[in-house]
Amino acid sequence: MTETDSNRTGWDKIIMGVDPGTNVMGYGILGVRGKKPAMIALGVIELNKFESHYLRLKRIYDRILMLVEQYLPDEMAIEAPFFGKNVQSMLKLGRAQGVAMAAALARDVPITEYEPRKIKMAITGNGGASKEQVREMLKRILDINEDQLLPQLDSTDALGAALCHFYESSRPLARTSASSWKDFIARNPDRVK
Amino acid sequence: MTETDSNRTGWDKIIMGVDPGTNVMGYGILGVRGKKPAMIALGVIELNKFESHYLRLKRIYDRILMLVEQYLPDEMAIEAPFFGKNVQSMLKLGRAQGVAMAAALARDVPITEYEPRKIKMAITGNGGASKEQVREMLKRILDINEDQLLPQLDSTDALGAALCHFYESSRPLARTSASSWKDFIARNPDRVK
Repeated sequence: MTETDSNRTGWDKIIMGVDPGTNVMGYGILGVRGKKPAMIALGVIELNKFESHYLRLKRIYDRILMLVEQYLPDEMAIEAPFFGKNVQSMLKLGRAQGVAMAAALARDVPITEYEPRKIKMAITGNGGASKEQVREMLKRILDINEDQLLPQLDSTDALGAALCHFYESSRPLARTSASSWKDFIARNPDRVK
Repeated sequence: MTETDSNRTGWDKIIMGVDPGTNVMGYGILGVRGKKPAMIALGVIELNKFESHYLRLKRIYDRILMLVEQYLPDEMAIEAPFFGKNVQSMLKLGRAQGVAMAAALARDVPITEYEPRKIKMAITGNGGASKEQVREMLKRILDINEDQLLPQLDSTDALGAALCHFYESSRPLARTSASSWKDFIARNPDRVK
């Protein structure tokens, strides 16, 4: 895990991004100060070492709950593919997602899901971008040093979900905050007669 | 919910059966005294009234956790189909299962899964039996009155999962307890020369 600041104080909003998988689960904690997002923490939950399916699920639940209690996120953003190879893998993925969601729901953290394509589009401007491209864009946008990142791309995917959620949820706010008459005139000079 | 005895005291073992679904989740609590199983409680968690997918998942988590804390089951048996119509429905089912499992795992209750076919076979002797047949057999085996049952077959399916688990888990025990020399001779007269 990489961590730059684990203190809830000082952030206006904290978003926890999760990229659930049955072998590796990535997570990224994004803090927002004013309108500026920053990385708070990044990590992966390795599940390969557990042979039992239930131990994996329990590990996901315990770790996500621990992270929720540590970082006290206001919201959770989950990267959730809606289509998979086969029904078997979707059932397994659904369980991993369900267990992660349960940990958030247990602490009343609202959940929003984003399709991988949507996240890639929000971060890189290209829905078909590679995980490496998402990683590179996150480095630039959030001003992250290479040594703060992890080799597992699941971690940056999770952080990408959190940043995507920040963009999505701040969009209507941006509209609202710019709704003064003066702003309206500035933005729509042609509509003022 | 139908309930005959909510007291943990007096039972050697308590098994909680769950039939997870995204519209209705059934549950059945089975108590074992000596080698005799009996119904303790039976119920359904209605999810149709919640429009939001997350509210449904939260409802499942909260109710299953509440039941686990109320009945203190030693084990959980889940009816789990391994094949479904399509990847979408399997993802949803996986999430419902995952959330129910998380509630058990949160209290360290071990989980065992059984395919519907296996449960039907264990209860009725026919893997292709109808839900109504499972219900009727449970009435006879567990000596349940009609007025103790619910109209929703998800509840008896869940109780069936619990009884199936009781049969499965007591099988090796039965072997062990019948392993005295006298028993062995009685069961295998031809092998004693």
